[in-house]
Amino acid sequence: MTIKFDRILLEHGGGGLLSNELIAKTFLPLLKNPLLEELQDGAVFEVGGTKLCFTTDSYVVHPRFFPGGDIGSLAVHGTVNDIAMCGGVPLVLSAGFILEEGFQMEELERIVRSMAVAAKSAGVVVATGDTKVVPRGAVDGLFINTSGIGVIRYGGVLSVRSIRPGDAVLVSGPIGDHGAAILSAREDLGFASAVASDSAPLNGLVETILAASNEIHCMRDATRGGLGAILAEIAGQSGMRITIREEAIPVRDEVRGICEILGFDPLFLANEGRMALFCPAESAETVLRAMRGHERGQDATIIGTVTEDRRGRVVLETIIGGSREIDLPTGELVPRIC
Amino acid sequence: MTIKFDRILLEHGGGGLLSNELIAKTFLPLLKNPLLEELQDGAVFEVGGTKLCFTTDSYVVHPRFFPGGDIGSLAVHGTVNDIAMCGGVPLVLSAGFILEEGFQMEELERIVRSMAVAAKSAGVVVATGDTKVVPRGAVDGLFINTSGIGVIRYGGVLSVRSIRPGDAVLVSGPIGDHGAAILSAREDLGFASAVASDSAPLNGLVETILAASNEIHCMRDATRGGLGAILAEIAGQSGMRITIREEAIPVRDEVRGICEILGFDPLFLANEGRMALFCPAESAETVLRAMRGHERGQDATIIGTVTEDRRGRVVLETIIGGSREIDLPTGELVPRIC
Repeated sequence: MTIKFDRILLEHGGGGLLSNELIAKTFLPLLKNPLLEELQDGAVFEVGGTKLCFTTDSYVVHPRFFPGGDIGSLAVHGTVNDIAMCGGVPLVLSAGFILEEGFQMEELERIVRSMAVAAKSAGVVVATGDTKVVPRGAVDGLFINTSGIGVIRYGGVLSVRSIRPGDAVLVSGPIGDHGAAILSAREDLGFASAVASDSAPLNGLVETILAASNEIHCMRDATRGGLGAILAEIAGQSGMRITIREEAIPVRDEVRGICEILGFDPLFLANEGRMALFCPAESAETVLRAMRGHERGQDATIIGTVTEDRRGRVVLETIIGGSREIDLPTGELVPRIC
Repeated sequence: MTIKFDRILLEHGGGGLLSNELIAKTFLPLLKNPLLEELQDGAVFEVGGTKLCFTTDSYVVHPRFFPGGDIGSLAVHGTVNDIAMCGGVPLVLSAGFILEEGFQMEELERIVRSMAVAAKSAGVVVATGDTKVVPRGAVDGLFINTSGIGVIRYGGVLSVRSIRPGDAVLVSGPIGDHGAAILSAREDLGFASAVASDSAPLNGLVETILAASNEIHCMRDATRGGLGAILAEIAGQSGMRITIREEAIPVRDEVRGICEILGFDPLFLANEGRMALFCPAESAETVLRAMRGHERGQDATIIGTVTEDRRGRVVLETIIGGSREIDLPTGELVPRIC
């Protein structure tokens, strides 16, 4: 745990242990400020009495087109979802393009069109942008950064710190679809698959949830590192024990199949349209009903509970009746997954 | 003018004619919305009665360290300045890092430290961030996106549309320093130079200006494409004729020297701490005095005037008594200048 790397590894961008170390040892100490230190999906602050959230993500996914989406729609969904996880209604996005000299104009148009469609369906506009072109070889095709601003009207405090013992843990649908779709879309895998990415805007679902209950404690979309990583992170930050039941976690058969062939665990495969949330057990059924009534939450389930535990860990109760701890992933996951 | 390129050229990122065409023919028609169509340095909109501006820029400068700055300080100054040009007081920035596998941790720390220093001196915090790591060869070292939010308290409308015949044109100091510093820092040029980049935050200067006059019509920082490109763009958008006097435009001797050796025109060299502004001629002396009283505007000068002209063009009155039109640059400028 005290190893200091002198070079950036792929794992520093994987959403696991090394990502967290890079943030904790490099970014936080140098850029020190209370907003950044919250370590949420976005920064939350007030301006003129209005609560806003502000979030950013760069998208480097490979390949740029995959079943269920492309880098353009992903860049909109990812940032819309980070705003939604803060309880925000997305207002505006920015789009920063870094293009490689020689990039096909037709492909760029296809990607920008896809962003426009995704933005429209999420009810947000791309209000400002920037384009840089770098010489051949200085970037692999096209990278996109989107940042976004949302307005928070929810009265509660959505934060890891709001999680309490007795809270229920819910997920909004089957996990691992995005990771499986990307893996199967990579040419070198040589097999096709019927799995489409779950890439989708979650802001509508979140509005439904927050309208149904004012007792939501924390929401997080299970992107890089998957459901396993975000739960391990939340357990670590909150100091609570999160117990999840393997049989309750929805995983598509096709995703399970791809994982078996390639040696992945669906718990650590990326999602781009799935979220976990924490709320008091008493509210869980109400919240679950609300989620299931929304197209993005039809397959929502209650997967676990929170208990007091100073060690802050995730325990998986397996289908065969055992239990094992889920740690933040340390090894290489899937590079360029988003 | 009707050529449609089927591939992205370096010139599409140069801040000249092809950049504008890419925006006009690809981004605007596809992402169509009133905020984007303003074509300002940032989007301006109201939330809960507060006027905000939102801006984004990616930084790909090569080399990453140059006299007077580095990619980290540049990424802060550039976005702070775009906010300032909208009349905004910068509030928060985001930082999105795209790192190449194998990037030196020590260099990353140096860059992040430089961002922290720059942010502090501009009075802004990096409130949220994102890090992606891509395999070796997929990016040249490190690219940074910063987006930012500012609060606008200025009562006037800062826009190309506010420019009127009779307006004076001012610049805040000598032009071309950043471009010259980058050119001379590139190893393959094989000569050293004493020119440091002008990279600096302009928000303090802008606050001084807006406190001195409520008649400022338009402000623009002269980044990619230099003073020549932004004036040509403004002339084109406003339909006004901008006449500038060559002898009034401050250019350092060293910058002039580098331009002569390399065949560049200082008018089209990038700046990262210089701005142009438009205000009524009657206010020009007041504004000039205010600018000169601020450390970032000590060498401010009045360089020209605006007159009615349906063709929207920039005319340079040369030192030798002639005059020539200044067009948006069409050829290759300096790639990866910011």
